[in-house]
Amino acid sequence: MSYEVKSLNEECGIFGVWGHPEASSVTYFGLHSLQHRGQEGAGIVSNDAGVLHGYRDLGLLSEVFKDDRDLQRLKGNAAIGHVRYATAGNGSVDNIQPFLFKFYDCSCGLAHNGNLTNAKSLRRELEADGAIFHSNSDTEILMHLIRRSRKETWLDKLKEALQTVQGGFAYILMREDCMVAALDANGFRPLAIGQMKNGAYVIASETCALEVIGADFVRDVQPGEIIIINDDGFTVDHFTNETQHAICSMEYIYFARPDSNIAGVNVHTARKNMGRILAAEAPVEADMVIGVPNSSLSAASGYAEASGIPYEQGLVKNQYIARTFIQPTQELREQGVRMKLSAVRGVVAGKKVIMVDDSIVRGTTSRRIVQLLKEAGALEVHVRIASPPLKYPCFYGIDIQTRKELIAANHSVAEICECIGADSLSFLSEDGLIEAIGLDFDAPYSGLCMAYFNGDYPTPLYDYEEQYQASLKEKVSFFN
Amino acid sequence: MSYEVKSLNEECGIFGVWGHPEASSVTYFGLHSLQHRGQEGAGIVSNDAGVLHGYRDLGLLSEVFKDDRDLQRLKGNAAIGHVRYATAGNGSVDNIQPFLFKFYDCSCGLAHNGNLTNAKSLRRELEADGAIFHSNSDTEILMHLIRRSRKETWLDKLKEALQTVQGGFAYILMREDCMVAALDANGFRPLAIGQMKNGAYVIASETCALEVIGADFVRDVQPGEIIIINDDGFTVDHFTNETQHAICSMEYIYFARPDSNIAGVNVHTARKNMGRILAAEAPVEADMVIGVPNSSLSAASGYAEASGIPYEQGLVKNQYIARTFIQPTQELREQGVRMKLSAVRGVVAGKKVIMVDDSIVRGTTSRRIVQLLKEAGALEVHVRIASPPLKYPCFYGIDIQTRKELIAANHSVAEICECIGADSLSFLSEDGLIEAIGLDFDAPYSGLCMAYFNGDYPTPLYDYEEQYQASLKEKVSFFN
Amino acid sequence: MSYEVKSLNEECGIFGVWGHPEASSVTYFGLHSLQHRGQEGAGIVSNDAGVLHGYRDLGLLSEVFKDDRDLQRLKGNAAIGHVRYATAGNGSVDNIQPFLFKFYDCSCGLAHNGNLTNAKSLRRELEADGAIFHSNSDTEILMHLIRRSRKETWLDKLKEALQTVQGGFAYILMREDCMVAALDANGFRPLAIGQMKNGAYVIASETCALEVIGADFVRDVQPGEIIIINDDGFTVDHFTNETQHAICSMEYIYFARPDSNIAGVNVHTARKNMGRILAAEAPVEADMVIGVPNSSLSAASGYAEASGIPYEQGLVKNQYIARTFIQPTQELREQGVRMKLSAVRGVVAGKKVIMVDDSIVRGTTSRRIVQLLKEAGALEVHVRIASPPLKYPCFYGIDIQTRKELIAANHSVAEICECIGADSLSFLSEDGLIEAIGLDFDAPYSGLCMAYFNGDYPTPLYDYEEQYQASLKEKVSFFN
Amino acid sequence: MSYEVKSLNEECGIFGVWGHPEASSVTYFGLHSLQHRGQEGAGIVSNDAGVLHGYRDLGLLSEVFKDDRDLQRLKGNAAIGHVRYATAGNGSVDNIQPFLFKFYDCSCGLAHNGNLTNAKSLRRELEADGAIFHSNSDTEILMHLIRRSRKETWLDKLKEALQTVQGGFAYILMREDCMVAALDANGFRPLAIGQMKNGAYVIASETCALEVIGADFVRDVQPGEIIIINDDGFTVDHFTNETQHAICSMEYIYFARPDSNIAGVNVHTARKNMGRILAAEAPVEADMVIGVPNSSLSAASGYAEASGIPYEQGLVKNQYIARTFIQPTQELREQGVRMKLSAVRGVVAGKKVIMVDDSIVRGTTSRRIVQLLKEAGALEVHVRIASPPLKYPCFYGIDIQTRKELIAANHSVAEICECIGADSLSFLSEDGLIEAIGLDFDAPYSGLCMAYFNGDYPTPLYDYEEQYQASLKEKVSFFN
Repeated sequence: MSYEVKSLNEECGIFGVWGHPEASSVTYFGLHSLQHRGQEGAGIVSNDAGVLHGYRDLGLLSEVFKDDRDLQRLKGNAAIGHVRYATAGNGSVDNIQPFLFKFYDCSCGLAHNGNLTNAKSLRRELEADGAIFHSNSDTEILMHLIRRSRKETWLDKLKEALQTVQGGFAYILMREDCMVAALDANGFRPLAIGQMKNGAYVIASETCALEVIGADFVRDVQPGEIIIINDDGFTVDHFTNETQHAICSMEYIYFARPDSNIAGVNVHTARKNMGRILAAEAPVEADMVIGVPNSSLSAASGYAEASGIPYEQGLVKNQYIARTFIQPTQELREQGVRMKLSAVRGVVAGKKVIMVDDSIVRGTTSRRIVQLLKEAGALEVHVRIASPPLKYPCFYGIDIQTRKELIAANHSVAEICECIGADSLSFLSEDGLIEAIGLDFDAPYSGLCMAYFNGDYPTPLYDYEEQYQASLKEKVSFFN
Repeated sequence: MSYEVKSLNEECGIFGVWGHPEASSVTYFGLHSLQHRGQEGAGIVSNDAGVLHGYRDLGLLSEVFKDDRDLQRLKGNAAIGHVRYATAGNGSVDNIQPFLFKFYDCSCGLAHNGNLTNAKSLRRELEADGAIFHSNSDTEILMHLIRRSRKETWLDKLKEALQTVQGGFAYILMREDCMVAALDANGFRPLAIGQMKNGAYVIASETCALEVIGADFVRDVQPGEIIIINDDGFTVDHFTNETQHAICSMEYIYFARPDSNIAGVNVHTARKNMGRILAAEAPVEADMVIGVPNSSLSAASGYAEASGIPYEQGLVKNQYIARTFIQPTQELREQGVRMKLSAVRGVVAGKKVIMVDDSIVRGTTSRRIVQLLKEAGALEVHVRIASPPLKYPCFYGIDIQTRKELIAANHSVAEICECIGADSLSFLSEDGLIEAIGLDFDAPYSGLCMAYFNGDYPTPLYDYEEQYQASLKEKVSFFN
Repeated sequence: MSYEVKSLNEECGIFGVWGHPEASSVTYFGLHSLQHRGQEGAGIVSNDAGVLHGYRDLGLLSEVFKDDRDLQRLKGNAAIGHVRYATAGNGSVDNIQPFLFKFYDCSCGLAHNGNLTNAKSLRRELEADGAIFHSNSDTEILMHLIRRSRKETWLDKLKEALQTVQGGFAYILMREDCMVAALDANGFRPLAIGQMKNGAYVIASETCALEVIGADFVRDVQPGEIIIINDDGFTVDHFTNETQHAICSMEYIYFARPDSNIAGVNVHTARKNMGRILAAEAPVEADMVIGVPNSSLSAASGYAEASGIPYEQGLVKNQYIARTFIQPTQELREQGVRMKLSAVRGVVAGKKVIMVDDSIVRGTTSRRIVQLLKEAGALEVHVRIASPPLKYPCFYGIDIQTRKELIAANHSVAEICECIGADSLSFLSEDGLIEAIGLDFDAPYSGLCMAYFNGDYPTPLYDYEEQYQASLKEKVSFFN
Repeated sequence: MSYEVKSLNEECGIFGVWGHPEASSVTYFGLHSLQHRGQEGAGIVSNDAGVLHGYRDLGLLSEVFKDDRDLQRLKGNAAIGHVRYATAGNGSVDNIQPFLFKFYDCSCGLAHNGNLTNAKSLRRELEADGAIFHSNSDTEILMHLIRRSRKETWLDKLKEALQTVQGGFAYILMREDCMVAALDANGFRPLAIGQMKNGAYVIASETCALEVIGADFVRDVQPGEIIIINDDGFTVDHFTNETQHAICSMEYIYFARPDSNIAGVNVHTARKNMGRILAAEAPVEADMVIGVPNSSLSAASGYAEASGIPYEQGLVKNQYIARTFIQPTQELREQGVRMKLSAVRGVVAGKKVIMVDDSIVRGTTSRRIVQLLKEAGALEVHVRIASPPLKYPCFYGIDIQTRKELIAANHSVAEICECIGADSLSFLSEDGLIEAIGLDFDAPYSGLCMAYFNGDYPTPLYDYEEQYQASLKEKVSFFN
């Protein structure tokens, strides 16, 4: 959630509900709990007895939907919604989801979380055949494939399309007569089914969204599944049976909310376990353990508990940082003006500190925090990272697309330690991570995707293969 | 900082800087770290070589000052700023500070934190004598008193005015040739002096604002002092020598940021001590300690540490709650839709839980959180409050103005426990609070104001006396 | 231009420039003079050395482009722009033009004025073949046809597409290496070529846009032409040679700005002639002639001049009406509250008045104005309409789509006179209109489209034929 | 109304209604018709059974009050409103009226049109005596005088205050129990009383506001009068009997709407008479008469009628100019880009033109229009100004405050003619103006203020005297 000080970004949260008289409100509150998955845009498509209405715009959910009237226009008993993270330069409303397609024969809403590995080649083929795309998003591809499919039924068309796209994807479609969810063959992205007290079924990226709307957890969507929800309940179909779990480990480490469960494992508990195992793997004598707010607090408390060293609040994060567009000038920064994190002088001065963070991307943030702590009087700062070194890009929906931006892809742990100015540095081991999360799927790494750490991608890389191979040969220095 | 779930509200944060080429930017960043003290409005008055410029509006600081151009208009080497909490109905920009007064013979900016106890009678006297007020704020009174004073010098006029107003006040004035800070005779509100690396002096409600702008702490402003800052540095004068420390204990308990120091005591450390002493005073067997985010996390970790019971993240607060104007309908609330806090089922289910909170006002929030935890499967919920019961209103700047809204003014601890549905309930003792904070002024309660807990007000109540006496005779029931 | 009191609406103005360093600014000023052709949305696509940038939004041009920075983002030496009139309910930004298409092999901007008569069937065919549309606008069709064409060159693809669409259309396309304009085979919509002082070529819906940007008029685009503009100047090609002028007579009567010339005829002069001929055709004794502001002032002064009766300003239009969303309640309307037009009591009281208007659609406005004049004391109100009765819908780009809304399609002149409460009523004859405009093309009606008056459509009606035939059988009464 | 191309600015329109259930809506529509008197800010204060509510902001009325909800908050049976013209730099909402004062003993709203000649000295005296002003406006002065008066009754306090202020003023006050209007002893500004169909009384700057809300004209407010309106109707009182009409002649010439009557004289008719007399005083042979839109159209038609020369629409004004913040760069201007006015080439090319305008301030606009007409091919341009040369500043409410900005104060008619590039130039004579308006008060100039033309100010100039005398000695050249 400390997305502002990190260059890691999830690409979206999705939500859908079928069978509730205030469907768009329910979707609003569901999306609200998924806001940490994307802050750049939001939208809702509702289904009013077969007529689909949509609204979407750039900004936080609360900026897109400002008051009740904004939701009242989205009438109907069913709705899907989306919160989006957008990379700079693509900040056009055209890319905000859900997309709403209106055809002469039907209408359809579409929301997507993930990244397709063959999007570029599919888009080029489709365009060469006359297709017109209206966004930069790879989400549109699915709809072009469906509409061009020669299969008979919409379900067969959908299956054919889902078999054509590759990579990581969790889709929710709103049709006039049903709502459909689908998950890629590896289950990279989380997707859960819940049921509200009035019987309405909901689909959500994370279970925290079920909690927020008072829904009971029913089951996770499984890899390769198509879930079809209508007034009769939900049915399960498959577009493929060649599936193998490879759940994104970064969801547990950093992205998901601590109160969410993924594949039955609570995220806070997993993080606390990461801290506990890290304490065992990389002990150090110190006066206190402090976590980098907010995503590392669970791991830090696990480390403290396992080590017996007191847990202290040595760093404070400004709660109002999210939407500030005014930043200190270079000159003010040099004079020590900073906005996001403050070290608590009264706590850390004269103390040996263990600083627990969830991960290191470029190292810039870690260096800054170590410096903050030392300026506030910390005698020693021992950095403990509750995940293995990030060395490889992700192609399934997380914004780590080049090895050049990963310090651990270019430097040894000792070099990183020197670079960030820490007195010592340790990372959690890969085995430690797998143990901490504790999945037990019959799949490599117990069902986790560990590719960012070891380059072992669970699928072919398609359009990214060439660029990836090239990146393996490059090295850059993070010492300037 | 969890101001949304609490009916306690501070009335403002103030900041000033003299001698920095980017004075309005420095003020922006200083105010940014004081945003927790008021979210309803913000403003800055700058001093450009004797010409004062001002801008203020309703909203968060980042909404009032949207981009760099908004600050560039506020040129000059000195500036003062204000963030404001406004009670409903007074949401007019006329009440947003700093006020900027332009007279034929001079200009003056004025920012105020606190509450005057004789504001009503002073205003009536002034109006009866022809004065025209343009806001509902009691801040204007000081300027009317200054302008009507028959004293010779501006400093004597100011002293006379400061001797006339009663209650809790921390003022910063921006004059053409100097910046002035003043603190009431009891020092109810915190106010600190710092110095930036370039030599510029700053004044701020909390020391966290000094940290954020890279300023060194110089000293606290003392009760009865007038601090005059100009290009030659700062000088200290007094409007009264009859002073006695009565620092607001709620600053330590709830309002101030954990990284601030007040009277040399770190707020996080004080809170952790409150938790530690509470653990000793009110032990209970349980599986875990959880804090109500965000203000109770320090106390909860102190309790956990002292008791040896693990500290867990059993409650998660939505980071994006602050500016949401869409609220669940009654029907959705009954169906369990909630936005602010979620209980972490995976953590608390089947467990005995100690829930630490900083204070109880009406009890509504506590009841809701206990219910949340039980619905998430907690077997027992033992509530521990890291401050004594709130029984008396505050007249010095905190929005607890009537005993009717205070459950502890109307019910015993056992009744409150029943009302909030807890399995047990304990409060920190008054002595425990005083010990936890650990001031040692030669004044009652070691220099704290404890009036909310015991009705022992350090000053006469003036305009509030009658209403206060009446309130002592009223009783209301919080069981409905 | 009195579009607010009339239910006639043009569907758009288009503009393009190639070869000017401030192309998007030039486009802004050009569009500004075309704002009367559409007030619901505006957009610009610029060409920055082959890279196309676009921005569009709902609202007046001055609302969409608020300050210079909004234009500075649209860099480049060429640009096209569009102002749009949108029917209620389609008020989505998706429909605002120019459309900007980005393909793997090229980019293209597209702006359109007009209406296609085979849009519905083309769209259905394209969708059935897998095409996905992203707007309700028929403009997208052209791009789908181009992209699906099997022809070799882009120019042949464009020609094929232009041969496929039917109806009224004026297009401007921005390609990476040239700007292209095209006009339908009847030249329903005006489209002119101009040249700026620096040599840049411009294309505009009306010549008033050339005046505003200081460009010289070069020539009108002729029916069936494709104009290709690049750094070498402009070349003329044709997509068809089967052409015949049928210029929209409503452009002369009502839509176009009086300072525009269409096919060499000045609009103000044509209107003044309409008034002159009307005075000869339908004389009446009276004290004064007044025009309904603003579109009828030219005709009224013509009538006055020819009749020798003084021209007076008996009606005043509020200049600030355009963007007012607060309207009088029914009760206030009944009490006589009105906002748009006021009768000048001091001028009309006790007088016999000739009120000249350009056209009558439903008669509601005329009735209201007659009533206004009588309430202000006019003894007699003789209504003279400077065009023939509107009896038939338009399918080529003007929003008169059903005979039910046309009082003259359902009532005789005598009945209309009674309905609007006038003392007498006369319309200009069809011959009078043709004479007043004075075109001399070798085509029916000297090259005018007179279909709204006589149902003589210059083309087949395609998708509208059925609906049109049905409408001929319906009759409704405008007396309620 | 062509305020954008002229440096003349009225300072406000005021409106009030007592006794209508939709008082704030009525005020909105009344102000809407007065928008030409001020476009920089607007506000309304309503009276809801003795409780006053106010709202005001910068911008056009339709920007300040965006939808019905904005008015619904201003409940009550009575309301006053204000539209304001503000000089650059004072664009603060603090200056927008009506002011709403809330005292311990009463509340009061205040709206003002005019300018006080002793404002500066009164303000200085009041401030020296401790008064605090919150705006730059001189309107506040009246309230300070009222509140400081030692008289017994509010009416006597008001009279004393009205006797103290000097210059031009029309006030409307909203008290809890009545609405009060007052006019200065010379009646510089127009102010009329009307009555709605339900019996409610209204007060308005111009009678066009009565027409718009369906009210009947009752009478003009006379110089020196105080009109008190409550549920029993209206009563007339006086604060002075030493009165003499000196109605602002610029209201007839330029400011007021043509459909307004002032002192019983219709503005359009007066303007047409100015044109007629001008034709007699300054005939010239030509092909056509054209008026500068919009304010000169009446005078132009009068000139045409009297001279027998045809009236043509040779200049067209863009209807959408009002709120455009994007202006052509210098370079674009040099290339001929212009936005506000266009000459109609098809009308004026090859013709001798008489261009009628209402007045000349700096001559810049006239020069530009002459140039426009010549570039469009006019052979000769004879400028005829329907008022005498403007040579002296106004101190009673019109923004002509220095002789340096008046070309006629610095140059002869022949020089002005040369400067603007006209083939001939004539102004209406002073006697011609007086005759055209046709008042018959027993006062100098039949009751008109002619000071702008001859320097004969009807009152002492007080605070402006020194500056005025100095200005008489200065001369500047308008040839650059």
